Amino acid sequence: MATSEFELIRRYFTDLGKQRQWLSVGIGDDAAVITPPAGQQLLISIDTLNVGIHFPAQSSAKDIGHKALAVNLSDIAAMGGEPQWFTLALSLPSADEAWLSLFCQGLAELVEQYQLCLVGGDTTRGPLSITIQIAGAIPTEQALTRAGANVGDDIYVTGTLGDAAAGLLVCENQLHADETTTRYFLNRLNRPEPRVAIGLGLRGIATACIDVSDGLAADLGHIIDDSGVGAELRMETLPVSGQLRAQGLAEARLQELNLFGGDDYELCFTAAPPQRAAIAQLAQTTAVPITLIGTVIAEKGLFALEHAQRASLPAKGFDHFQNE
Amino acid sequence: MATSEFELIRRYFTDLGKQRQWLSVGIGDDAAVITPPAGQQLLISIDTLNVGIHFPAQSSAKDIGHKALAVNLSDIAAMGGEPQWFTLALSLPSADEAWLSLFCQGLAELVEQYQLCLVGGDTTRGPLSITIQIAGAIPTEQALTRAGANVGDDIYVTGTLGDAAAGLLVCENQLHADETTTRYFLNRLNRPEPRVAIGLGLRGIATACIDVSDGLAADLGHIIDDSGVGAELRMETLPVSGQLRAQGLAEARLQELNLFGGDDYELCFTAAPPQRAAIAQLAQTTAVPITLIGTVIAEKGLFALEHAQRASLPAKGFDHFQNE
Repeated sequence: MATSEFELIRRYFTDLGKQRQWLSVGIGDDAAVITPPAGQQLLISIDTLNVGIHFPAQSSAKDIGHKALAVNLSDIAAMGGEPQWFTLALSLPSADEAWLSLFCQGLAELVEQYQLCLVGGDTTRGPLSITIQIAGAIPTEQALTRAGANVGDDIYVTGTLGDAAAGLLVCENQLHADETTTRYFLNRLNRPEPRVAIGLGLRGIATACIDVSDGLAADLGHIIDDSGVGAELRMETLPVSGQLRAQGLAEARLQELNLFGGDDYELCFTAAPPQRAAIAQLAQTTAVPITLIGTVIAEKGLFALEHAQRASLPAKGFDHFQNE
Repeated sequence: MATSEFELIRRYFTDLGKQRQWLSVGIGDDAAVITPPAGQQLLISIDTLNVGIHFPAQSSAKDIGHKALAVNLSDIAAMGGEPQWFTLALSLPSADEAWLSLFCQGLAELVEQYQLCLVGGDTTRGPLSITIQIAGAIPTEQALTRAGANVGDDIYVTGTLGDAAAGLLVCENQLHADETTTRYFLNRLNRPEPRVAIGLGLRGIATACIDVSDGLAADLGHIIDDSGVGAELRMETLPVSGQLRAQGLAEARLQELNLFGGDDYELCFTAAPPQRAAIAQLAQTTAVPITLIGTVIAEKGLFALEHAQRASLPAKGFDHFQNE
């Protein structure tokens, strides 16, 4: 006997996330009823992961569950928000309980960590696809948009760049590393850690912020476009993990991964120079490196500074309709 | 040259829906920023349509756009809510501009009619799939849930039943009607009219409400289950369109379409008998028939009354993992 859609949803999803005071009616009615927090604005973002496009067909269900929620949490982090609730639309080729159970484990770890609540869902038959819409809260007028960068601001990025792209190369048999390093790259690709704590810490500090999902050049490109400014990156300061550095890649190849590799889900943000001490403090309390990588300039465009040379950079990034 | 994902989104979706005062940051940042209306609760619902499951591969893009939004509006209607904003996750096999343009026309008509606002989107490559999450507003504590039906309440349904199921039979070459009637059935299947005005009018009147998406028996089944009651349906009162009546189907076949046919997107609700005049008035002002079809009873289960006979009804409905 096939498990019915209703049973599947009930069994795996109804109890996901704590019951919240502001949740008047949860999953199982035509719509959830939510009392919005007073004095706060809502942040709303939506992201889809499709098999074969955003993750390989052989990915583990647990990793897929993690990543589907993590990329959405990353959007809330990039706005300086506190994640609150989400909805899940899941298309599955068949009602595979073992798969669903693992997928839910992947979700559940982040649900627990961030005290989220699943408020609605739709499970349909179709090629594997996961769409999550997430909501966060932010005190009125404090959201970190892409449009606030000022000439003279510092440019920062969290964590390290290019590791997820290296993970993709590993999957495609284009990069071969030892077992521990391979696991590190794959983890960076499949289990990104959303920088929620850093986003919260950047309220009132960052002037603009974005998460690096399509590659640093493309995403910093959105900040400078929306802010009407330009940016100079000091190439030697781009943060590279010891593991990626150890692969002995040609410098040009390494820079390509740093600038154009997608899926890192780090935060790129701008802040005025007087905020340097506060940002160093935030790196310390969150135990995540935050690196000063460049400066906002008046001349529009994205430029790389290296060995006293200055070159224009294309803002190319990962595009699902182009780079396949 | 392929059109980039960013361009596609910008061109077709950025201007969809009016700019609202409560929308501080719209599409194009990591998340939209929304100021929730004071004294109101949020209604949140999500629905996915997949090609080959929820609509035939040959469906027109305009119909698909209409239906994807209509089924979500129907959920807000069933809660008594006022639709406000939505997000759209669209998977497309290719960046087909002609298709997108028609799809957006289908969306745009409902966006205009209900003064909605698109606040976020994700466009990815994949088999055709549309997920919409919609938000509505409702004054605090006034949402129409499935759980409030009381013994002695009347049971109503809006519009007529079984026409969408007849449309599906037409698609499958199992029903042949004249051209006008065929168009009527296909319209009922592909372009459902969400009963938003009726839902708004039922605030303070209905004790429980649901939209009929999986068939009357299944959806009324949810009301009686969640309310801890039973229901008796007077079979001869089930509203059937003249077009469906004219098909000369056997009575048992007609009842099957009425009770178990999906996709009608009518509202089924319960109300105390003193509300009959108010409900008749609502039918008149909205120009949609509202038919009294049964009574809420204490004995659990769903029963059909016909020619002084009483029979137990299964609450079977359309289930994407079972009935294919």
